[in-house]
Formats: sequence, C-alpha cells, structure tokens
Amino acid sequence: MLSVASASKKLIAEAQPLVSDRRRAGLESVPVHEALGRVVAADIVAAVDVPPAANSAMDGYAYCAADAAANKYRLALSQRIPAGAAPAALEPGTVARIFTGGEIPAGADTVAMQENCVDSDGWVKLDKKAEAGANIRAQGQDIQAGAVIVTAGTRLRAQEMGLLSSVGIAAVEVFKPLKVAIFSTGDELVEPGMPLHQGQIYNSNRATLIGLIEALGMVPVDLGVVPDRLAATQHVLKKAAMRGDVIISAGGVSVGEEDYVKTAVEKVGAVEFWKVAIKPGKPLAFGHVENTPFIGLPGNPASVFTTFMILARPFLLACQGCTAVKTRPLQAPALFAKAGEKRQVYLRGRLTGGGVEIYPNQSSGVLSSACWGDVFVVQKPGQSIEQADLVDVLPYAL
Amino acid sequence: MLSVASASKKLIAEAQPLVSDRRRAGLESVPVHEALGRVVAADIVAAVDVPPAANSAMDGYAYCAADAAANKYRLALSQRIPAGAAPAALEPGTVARIFTGGEIPAGADTVAMQENCVDSDGWVKLDKKAEAGANIRAQGQDIQAGAVIVTAGTRLRAQEMGLLSSVGIAAVEVFKPLKVAIFSTGDELVEPGMPLHQGQIYNSNRATLIGLIEALGMVPVDLGVVPDRLAATQHVLKKAAMRGDVIISAGGVSVGEEDYVKTAVEKVGAVEFWKVAIKPGKPLAFGHVENTPFIGLPGNPASVFTTFMILARPFLLACQGCTAVKTRPLQAPALFAKAGEKRQVYLRGRLTGGGVEIYPNQSSGVLSSACWGDVFVVQKPGQSIEQADLVDVLPYAL
Repeated sequence: MLSVASASKKLIAEAQPLVSDRRRAGLESVPVHEALGRVVAADIVAAVDVPPAANSAMDGYAYCAADAAANKYRLALSQRIPAGAAPAALEPGTVARIFTGGEIPAGADTVAMQENCVDSDGWVKLDKKAEAGANIRAQGQDIQAGAVIVTAGTRLRAQEMGLLSSVGIAAVEVFKPLKVAIFSTGDELVEPGMPLHQGQIYNSNRATLIGLIEALGMVPVDLGVVPDRLAATQHVLKKAAMRGDVIISAGGVSVGEEDYVKTAVEKVGAVEFWKVAIKPGKPLAFGHVENTPFIGLPGNPASVFTTFMILARPFLLACQGCTAVKTRPLQAPALFAKAGEKRQVYLRGRLTGGGVEIYPNQSSGVLSSACWGDVFVVQKPGQSIEQADLVDVLPYAL
Repeated sequence: MLSVASASKKLIAEAQPLVSDRRRAGLESVPVHEALGRVVAADIVAAVDVPPAANSAMDGYAYCAADAAANKYRLALSQRIPAGAAPAALEPGTVARIFTGGEIPAGADTVAMQENCVDSDGWVKLDKKAEAGANIRAQGQDIQAGAVIVTAGTRLRAQEMGLLSSVGIAAVEVFKPLKVAIFSTGDELVEPGMPLHQGQIYNSNRATLIGLIEALGMVPVDLGVVPDRLAATQHVLKKAAMRGDVIISAGGVSVGEEDYVKTAVEKVGAVEFWKVAIKPGKPLAFGHVENTPFIGLPGNPASVFTTFMILARPFLLACQGCTAVKTRPLQAPALFAKAGEKRQVYLRGRLTGGGVEIYPNQSSGVLSSACWGDVFVVQKPGQSIEQADLVDVLPYAL
C-alpha cells in the first residue's frame, strides 16, 4: 500500500505538466478588485515605493530638528499640508502645519504632534521633547520599487489585492479557473427532491464535490449520476475529458463485478489503481482519459470528503498553478484516546477551548462526522493516541 | 478605552435587530448544490434515516447467522442484490449474493466478505469466522429521521451540502447575502492604474475591503473614494444607507480638522466614537445612518485589515444571521520575543513547522505584514512574550 505522503507526491508530480501546458493557453487578465481567490501566473514587481514619499503619521507640525533647536523651538508658520497636497520645500527656519498622510516637505525631518505644540499669530511653539525624525513614515517602509511583492502561484487573498493596489496595479494576469468534471456512479443513487424507492439512497457526493471544488475557486462541471454499466461509464468519461481540465468521480473504484470505473477508464485511457494507506478511503484510482487527468475517489460520503481534502485538493491546486498546495498541521491536545491502526487515519474532529475532540462514529458512511466539526486529527500508522497527547490537526478551512 | 472583547460584544449586540428584521424580508430558497457559503435561516430536520435501510459494507454474501450455524455454513444461493435493487425477503436457509451498498434483505443479519467464501453450483460455503452482524451498515447510522441536521445560522460548507442532499433535501432557505456599502476617504488617494502625483498614494483599502467582504460571501457595494469635504461625505453616507445593509468606511475617523466622518455621520444619523484598546487600530466609529449600521475603520492599510478581521467581521457575520461569528484561537510556540504594550496587539505572523514567527515591521502602514503570513498572534495588554511561550494565534482563514 502507498503511504499518504507517497500518493500525494505522485499526484502533485502529475500536476506539473498540466500547469506548463496551460501557461500559454489558460491565462487571463482580471481587475485586481475582482481577483479574490485567483492564482497569479507570474511574479509581480512593484514599480514604485510604498509610501511613495515620506509622510506624516500624525496631525501636527513638520520642521527641521536642527532649525528648531537653533531657534529655541519657536518657528514661523510657512505652509499648510493636508493629505494629498504637493508641498513646497520648507523655507529654512519655518514650520509647516501638516496632517496625517501629508507629504513631508523637503527640508523637514521631524513631525511634532499638534497636542504638544502652541500655534498662535503665525508662530508655532514646538514640542521640545519630540525626537528628531519622530512621527514620520519613511518612503518605501512598506514596499521598495523593484521588489517582488506577489510571487507566481499565489492564490490572492484580500490583503494581496490591497498590496497590488498600493503599488498602482489595476489588473493582474491569472490562470483561468480549473474546470473539474465530476460524476458519481451507482444504481442506488437518487437525486434529492425525487422519491426514494426501496434499495436506493440519496446522492450526497454530487453536492459535496460541487462545494469542495467551488471552495477552491474552481468550476465544477456536473455530469450527474452514471448507472453501473460499462458503456455508460465509458460515455461519461469521454464527455468529462472534453468538458473538464480534470475528471473526478465518486464510487465504483473497487474491483468487484459491479465496479466499472477501472474497466471503463482502461478502455478510453489508462488507469492505475492505488491502495493508499488512508482511512477512510483506501482504494483510489488515478489515470488519464485522452490526456485529461482522472481521479477516482471511493463512494462512501466521509471517504469522498476525506480523500478529496487530503489527496485531490493538493492535486487540483497544483493543476491550477498554485505553489502552496498542502496544509501544514497545527497541534492541539487530544481530548480522547484511540488505539493505532495500520493505515493513516483522518479522524473528523473539532477544536474546543481545551483541545481537540473527535466525532463518536468515524465510519466512512457517516458524513455527519465531517459536519460536526472543523478539523481532521491525523493519526499516523501505528500511532496510539492517549488523552492529552499533542496531535496534528488539519483545519478544513486552511 | 474599550477592550477588544467589550467592543466586539457591543457590536454583536447591535447586529441582532438587523437579523430579526430580515427574517421576513431577506430570505430566499436556493438549490442545495448552489448554496456554498450561504447561511441557513431555520433549523433543518431530516425526514428520513440515512442510510434509509441497512446495507452491505462489502461485496459478499448476506445470510442469517443462526441459519448458517445450523447448516454447517453451507447455504443455497437464492438471490442477487446489487446496489439499488429492492431485495425480496431472504428465504430461510439460503444466502444472497450482495454488493457494496446493496440493501440487506429481511431475514439476513450478517454479510461475509466474498474473499472468504466459496460460491459454486448454486451453493455457498460461508466464512465461519464472520461474526454475527458483520459488514452491515445499520439503518440510520449516520442520521435518524426527526434529527436536526443543520441548525439555523450555519454557514454551509461542502459537507453540509452533502448532508442535506443525503436526506433528500434539494433546496434550502437561506438569508440573502448582506450588501456592504464601502467607501474610502482621503484627498491623497488615487485609484490604481491612474498616474500618481506628488503628495498622493494609491488606494489599497478599496481592494482589501472588497476582498474581505467577498470572502464572507457578502456583496460589496463600492462607492469609491470620497474627498475630505463635509458635503461629499454626507452625500456618500446617504447613498450608502440606501444601497447597503451595512456601511463600512476606511479613514477619516480621527478627530482632526481634516477628518469629516464624525461630523458627517452626526448630520445624517448618529455616531459614537470608540477608542478601542487594539493595535493596530484604536479609533473606531460606530453609528447609524437612517437605520443602516455604520462602522468607520481607521485608514492605515494594516489597521483596516486588522480592525475588519477582529471587529467588523463578527459584526457582519452576525448581521448575516450566522451564529458562529468568532474565531477560537489556536496555540503555538512563539519563535520571537516582544515586550508587552498597553493595547491588545494583533501581530501579523506566520506558522512554520516549529511555531509562529512575526513580520519584522508591524507598523500600521505596512500591509506587507498581512500578506507575508497567515495568522494574527494575539498579544494581550501588558503580556510580555518570550521565545517558546505558547501564544494565541488566529488563522486569517478560519
């Protein structure tokens, strides 16, 4: 059996050619304020300093510290500098009224807070205690022109949108959102809203997969439910390869006589079956259909959630051009005990004030376990967890 | 000065009436598979068990354990039950071929794995070691009919979309996305893409606020930059009150002669100024314009990011009807030392393998600090942090 780490490494390696292919074909320019969650295609360099010039951190008075000392901290008022104004050079031996964000005039090197100064009849008595250089935000203190401010492969968050704006960038080149074609297999599946007959269950995997894909900023291409028949499975795989950049299926990846995914993928492409030492999960199919990568997830709802998050998610992010595709675990004290297992177990749990607890029923069929909380607890193969042990946790949202 | 906890409590209390008002006016029904990030308006109760009937966890043979023992583990094959089929009751003294997900027929109580059985000439030699009740997923093991599966105020994630689907729910009643009207104040602000003249800076707060609001699944209503003039500020506030459910501004909340937000809000509504013991940040305006709540954030880029995340975000989530509005801190060892301050400090940092480190320049003007990493380190008033101390961290993504 493959370890989770090996399976993940193999998958991410498979993602690389896809990204390279897409560098020419799959780019678009979008306004920065519409770029939340988009992945930047190339390093972005600042053309200007931020701030572009020294400015005042306070409402107060700007002056030359040496001048002030030479004139017993009493200087004539020579100009007023609100934020946004272009100041004249400060006349020697004078002081400028200045406001927060106002540009420091040439010749000034210090700002005294207004609360500590007296301004009357065109003269200002300055605060003797203000240190030379006080209350000034230096030019380039945030960003220096020429610096790389966002690297290729970054998924833009609000703060990067702000940072790009701060250097005057209005549009950014990003990868087009990955299209992920999905389908579920199983004659027992009925879509929600329809009547349920004996032997049938409602299909939860479709909605789970749509949500997981959209949460990554990608576009799910929903191909519905496929009956347990070879021809139908081949047909949907071909359609998926035409319409998606990646194909993900749920169910039918065992090798029983009612499992058609393996045979179907072999007929229209190539497939490897991996037994991954992961629980819930284990059987995972990986292959290609007409050069489109294919991942076959198992069919149990909690297995779909777990194998998607742990194995498919980093693969999809890598296909999208992201550089940071894996979540680094945090640590928290266990509020439970659990014997070790052969496979690496991803327990569905939740953080509380005192540590992390796990849902009582960890069956692969129990999707409630993933809704109850907000983290996986990672239990390594053979690792026995005792109360209060520090364990690795992976928040779903990271 | 208000503590961060008190300010947050006051804000969340102010959000309550808004939600109550909206219960009638602000609801809509959306398909579950389009409901990612939407906030559920009422408790949702399962009408069916999940699974709806006991089914097989394996490909194998279903039988009655007592029958098998009485017949020396050799029984006649009487039916075949693929997933999705409606099985007949099992004839006494016989066995059914069954596949993963297949419904357990009445009269059977155990499934033996196919690998451990021999099937020939219409007779099956069963696995003597299979325990009575083995390999059966019990009816209702995930969800029992009548249970509340998603509570009012839950923001739907992929797994809740799956859970709702699993009980056959196709559409869900959710709150309409909150419209958040935003504007920035300051004569020094220039939009990215335009030329920058002396004394000016590019406006980063607009993009940051748009990103932060969209990340919450809400709709930013962008009213641009407002010049530092009273009439213009009053005008934009009235427009914002008409177009937004909540108003958020950046800048102009100090009480200097170039700060017009306080006076403008007083003229068209009511305002309180709060000095909150938060760094970066401190001055925060809260009030109403024609019954629309108003939050005035400070103008420095890192202050906008921090005060939004710590104070505005929980308020907006509460206005949206969410019940879980605050992030619970995690803990990590500090890879730095820092003297305590009077205010509660939200240091911009990042998690590494060994703990959490902070960006060297924590100035309120330095937005790079928020882009560099992924967490706030919370430093309580007066708390001195030493290397390796366990400190509270708040991941931006949670």
